[in-house]
Formats: sequence, structure tokens, C-alpha cells
Amino acid sequence: MFAPLQNDTFIRACMRRATTHTPVWLMRQAGRYLPEYRATRAQAGSFMGLATNTDYATEVTLQPLERYPLDAAILFSDILTIPDAMGLGLSFALGEGPKFERSVRDEAAVAQLAVPDMAKLRYVFDAVTSIRKALNGRVPLIGFSGSPWTLACYMVEGAGSDDYRLVKTMLYQRPDLMHKMLAINADSVAAYLNAQIEAGAQAVMIFDSWGGVLADSAFHEFSLAYTARVLAQLKREHEGAVIPRLVFTKGGGLWLDDMGQLDCDVLGLDWNVNLRRARAQVGHKMALQGNLDPNVLFANASQIEAEAIKVLDSFGQPHTDATQTGPTHIFNLGHGISQHTPPESVEVLVNAVHTHSRKMRLQASSAGVKS
Amino acid sequence: MFAPLQNDTFIRACMRRATTHTPVWLMRQAGRYLPEYRATRAQAGSFMGLATNTDYATEVTLQPLERYPLDAAILFSDILTIPDAMGLGLSFALGEGPKFERSVRDEAAVAQLAVPDMAKLRYVFDAVTSIRKALNGRVPLIGFSGSPWTLACYMVEGAGSDDYRLVKTMLYQRPDLMHKMLAINADSVAAYLNAQIEAGAQAVMIFDSWGGVLADSAFHEFSLAYTARVLAQLKREHEGAVIPRLVFTKGGGLWLDDMGQLDCDVLGLDWNVNLRRARAQVGHKMALQGNLDPNVLFANASQIEAEAIKVLDSFGQPHTDATQTGPTHIFNLGHGISQHTPPESVEVLVNAVHTHSRKMRLQASSAGVKS
Repeated sequence: MFAPLQNDTFIRACMRRATTHTPVWLMRQAGRYLPEYRATRAQAGSFMGLATNTDYATEVTLQPLERYPLDAAILFSDILTIPDAMGLGLSFALGEGPKFERSVRDEAAVAQLAVPDMAKLRYVFDAVTSIRKALNGRVPLIGFSGSPWTLACYMVEGAGSDDYRLVKTMLYQRPDLMHKMLAINADSVAAYLNAQIEAGAQAVMIFDSWGGVLADSAFHEFSLAYTARVLAQLKREHEGAVIPRLVFTKGGGLWLDDMGQLDCDVLGLDWNVNLRRARAQVGHKMALQGNLDPNVLFANASQIEAEAIKVLDSFGQPHTDATQTGPTHIFNLGHGISQHTPPESVEVLVNAVHTHSRKMRLQASSAGVKS
Repeated sequence: MFAPLQNDTFIRACMRRATTHTPVWLMRQAGRYLPEYRATRAQAGSFMGLATNTDYATEVTLQPLERYPLDAAILFSDILTIPDAMGLGLSFALGEGPKFERSVRDEAAVAQLAVPDMAKLRYVFDAVTSIRKALNGRVPLIGFSGSPWTLACYMVEGAGSDDYRLVKTMLYQRPDLMHKMLAINADSVAAYLNAQIEAGAQAVMIFDSWGGVLADSAFHEFSLAYTARVLAQLKREHEGAVIPRLVFTKGGGLWLDDMGQLDCDVLGLDWNVNLRRARAQVGHKMALQGNLDPNVLFANASQIEAEAIKVLDSFGQPHTDATQTGPTHIFNLGHGISQHTPPESVEVLVNAVHTHSRKMRLQASSAGVKS
């Protein structure tokens, strides 16, 4: 049904297989920093108008790939499509974050929640299939969702928050309600990601964008346990291809040992994390993805190159043995790219990652010949 | 000049001396959640009107001590008084964060910066002396300042920020300017805290509120190094009394090993941190302060008690040997108290900390008798 994959570097790195360079893609790579994205969004009229239209979603997903030799595409969508399908009414005012018409703050509201009919999310699965066709095998397509906890944050708060007071009030005061909501969210996320896989997603990523706002003990009980519940339900392969599973917890660097117990293939890391230490902690069983500070892209070209090299060197030489699995690194930002980023900075970054990571491997192989 | 200290539990715990209970105070304990504070602020007209008036500053500093048996008082002021004294024009609109009239974004603006004349901060030192007198030895008075990096964030951004884009652009693009500003800030903070000590502060705390937004490598170079530069200049004692030095980096849990190298007495921790692990990392040389999630105070009384006990038990039994130093814990929130907090929740919390921490010590001493 789909064209065979030409550049499988990202998938190989996810599975801890040796690659000739470090693959790179950027969270929110299809987005407002690109003038062509802004033009398409203006045509679509709104963010949801863009995300729910198959042609527009396909067009903007491919835009960054026309400019830069990125090693993966990621579905253009939002982490909050599931609560929207639950009937909470998602919208985005221009220049503002997401907002729900209805929030979920009491027992009655939680009682009304259920895993949504996946038919309501058909626009997402149609977009996945359309993008996969349009990619024509160039690079793999990543599907994604918000984590159960991150969805709950927005469902209770009704929007973004500085202090997460309302969702944490429910967590501490009514942990029973919170657990009920999280179980529904987890089963919804699992069904949603499996449907994306069936529609053509070649890897899936769970964004626990707000896991890092939790207290140490609460993180394990209210975020990690439900990410694990999603992972336990996900398809491991589809039509003969393995489907890597990625988990990213912003602000989760203190819990790497615990996240290392998750049944997934890749951990995404933000810029607080020391990659060398993270590799020593979990690199023997998971690939690591990250972790340049997106604000580096506001510096000049030589500084962007130097910081990209610092991140690559911090992870160190990925393994190069084609016969085995071993530590691998997927280059990314530590968070979504800023809308203010100069597009030419991204070109400098992607080229620096490719060039330097190839050089690292050559040095390692010539060192190997000598020894 | 001042009355002798009656309750020295906080100072003893700072110096890793045994205490009969775990001392407790709360960041922003004098603040908007108290109706009596809001009444005084309404009289003063503005936040700076409150902070710059000795009588008002004294009154609001003592307000929480009238309600709760807290073990320390903290000067009522703001972390940004230094850049205000540098001429940047600090103001607070009601319900909003701090704002500067002028920001520091280029070489010319950095060139104009200098350590401010401490006479411009006289209102702070006068408040310290007045509060110390009014306390009359009940509990010790903590002085404080923002860290060099945290001051720089506000000085460049001109206000709070979601992404710290402007300050990080300077950091990555013009590290020379950033280092120049940070050196001036560090020397200003040191002079400021020393003057607070001379005016009567019995401990001083450096708030690195925005250290946690930095990338791993940048934190060491642009935040920690300048906190160390402040500490190196601080008075160790005043009029025969040792002056404990506390450092709090919000979001700094990943760098505890590095912060453990600082020449200070206490590390403040936010709620992401596991206290047991932190004690194992740095408890052999520093006291630990923290780390309840302030949102726990929105739960009901029995839940607040349970969460307070969880924090105390997570640190574990502090040492009880009166002849030696050893691991000690100062109870606090992991961040400032929310303005929406019900005042009665604070009473529940303070009592729970005192009661349970006394019980822990009794259990340990009766276990000691048995063994």
C-alpha cells in the first residue's frame, strides 16, 4: 500500500541499531516559524481548520522536509485531540494556547467521561494515511498523542496554567476522581495511537508535557503509571514493520531510572539533562532523543554549530556494530521549536548534526582500524 | 542591640545541629493569601509602597508569625530590589508579576551597569533592623536576594517570561556580555546580603528561581559559578553569631551533586526532588530545606497532614546527637505559597510538621533505649 522506506535512519536509531549518521528531527518542526506554514494557516482560517483538513495537514507536515534534510516527519496535529473528541470543545485563539469550552472539575463531569468513538478522530487517521502516501517513503512518519496526565491537566484547567492549581487540587483532594479520569485517558490514548499505526504511522510518541510539574511521589502514581498503561496496549508492529514507541516527559530528568523501566524504545530528554549521564543510566536499553535548548537557534551560525556539536559529544560516540544493538542517539530539541526561530538557523543545525555525527563515526572506525 | 534568640531551632538545623523538632517556615509566608496582608497592601497603595516603608514591611513580615508557630521570619521584600537600585525602574501592577521600565539587552545597556550604591537600598536594611527589633528574639530573621542569573533574566526580559528567549539569546550570542552582567550582579548581591547581615539578618538565602530553565552545561557556567561568587564574599558570622547561607535553585534537582560543592549551609529543594535520594547525595555536608508542593494546601486537613508526613518520612529521621553535626531537615514548600491558599491550611501544615517530627525523634530515642 505504501512505498518502501528509503531513509530508515530514524527507525534504526530508535531500535538501537547502528546508523551512518545521527538522525535529526525537531519537535513542532511544522509550525509557525515557517512563512509557508503561516500562509497555509491563514488559508485554513484556524488551527483546528488546519488540523482537521487532510490536504492542509499533509501540506504543512511536508513543508519542513522541503527545506531541510530531516530524518523523520511528524503528523501535524495537536496533543489535545482526544479531549476534543470527548466533547470538551478545543479551540485555539491566534497567538494563544489551547482552550476548552468545558472543563472537568467535579465528580459529575468525570462520570460523563468515556473513551471517545475513534470515528470522531477520523480526520487524524485520514491525515496520517495521506501524509504517509505523500512522503512516498522518503522518511518515516511519527504519530503522537498527549500523555494521560498531560491531557488531564488541560481537561481540568480548561487551558494552560502557571501553577496547575485546579488539577492538583483534584489530585490531592479527590485522587479517586483523578485515577478514574487517567484510566479513561490512558485507554483512549492507546486506542488513538493504535489507530494511527493502522493508518500508517511508523513510530508513535507520547508527549508528557506536564509530567515535570508533579511532586516526586505524585509523578509515579499519576503520570508514569498511566503512560505505562498506554504502552502495554500498543501494537508492537504493523504489516511486518516494528513500530518504535517514544516517551518524552518535559522536566522528567530526575526520574530517568524509573522511566528506564517503561516498556518503550526511546526516551525524549529536555535540555536540563546531561546526555552522558542519561546514557550511563538508561542507554543500555533505550535510545535517547534530544536535547538542544531551542533558544540556541537565536544565536549565529557558528554558535549553533558549536552547541549542536556539544550535544552530540555529550552523548558521545553511538555504537557502530551492524550486527548488534547498542547505545544510539536521535538529535532533537529539548522542547518544541520557538515560533520566532529564523528558518535559516534550522538549516545550519540539521547540517551540523549530519556532518559532525558522520565525522564522529569515521574517527571511531579509523581508531578501530589502528587498535 | 537585639534581644537574645529564644527559638533557635531553624539556625541549629541550618548548621546541621540536632533539634527537638523539624523547623518550618514557608516561602512567601507573608503574602496575599493572608487577609491582613491584603489590608496593609491596600493602605500602602502598591507592592513597592509596602516594601519601601519600614513600618509596613515590619508589620507584614510579622503577620504570619501572629497566626502560626513558624520557626523563622523572612524579610518582606522582593528578589528584584537590586536591579531597581541599578536604575531599571521596578514596578508591580496588581495581580501581575514584576516589570522593569528599562531592560538590558545590548552592549550599551550592559556598559552602563554597575554595583549600585547600597544607600539606594537603605529602605531594605532599615526594614531588617526594624523587623529584628519587633521580633524581639522570638525566631530568627532570614534576609535574601535573587541570584545573579535570576536577576539577569528579569533585567534582560524586562519582566517574567515563558521561554526566556531574550536572555538566552544574549547568553548564546553574546556570552561576553552575559558574563559581564553576571559578575556585576554577583558583586551587588554579595554587598546587598552583607549589608542585610550588618542590619540584623540572622541567615541569608539566595533564590535562583530561574536556574532551572538553563541547559545542563549553561547552568554551571551562567548560574552556579555566580552563586559561588556571591557565597565567596559573604560574611560567615556577625557579632559572634554564625550566619547560615541558604541556596535554592527551582528546577535544580538534577544538579544536586554540583550544588553540593557550593560553600553554603543549606540547599532548598523543590517538590520534584526525592528527599531520601537528596539526603544520600548531599546530606553529609548540607542541611536540606523543602519540599511540599504548595498545591497540597488546597486539599482537606487530613490530606495535608498525610502529605506533610510523607515529606518528613521521605527525608527520614534527622540525627539526634547533641554532640555532633549530622543530617537535618528544614520543612518548607517547594516554592512560594499560592495567593489562593486558605489560611487555615497553613495552620494544619505547621502543626502537622511539629507534631510528627517530635514523634519521629521520640520513636528514634525509644528505639535507641531498646537497642
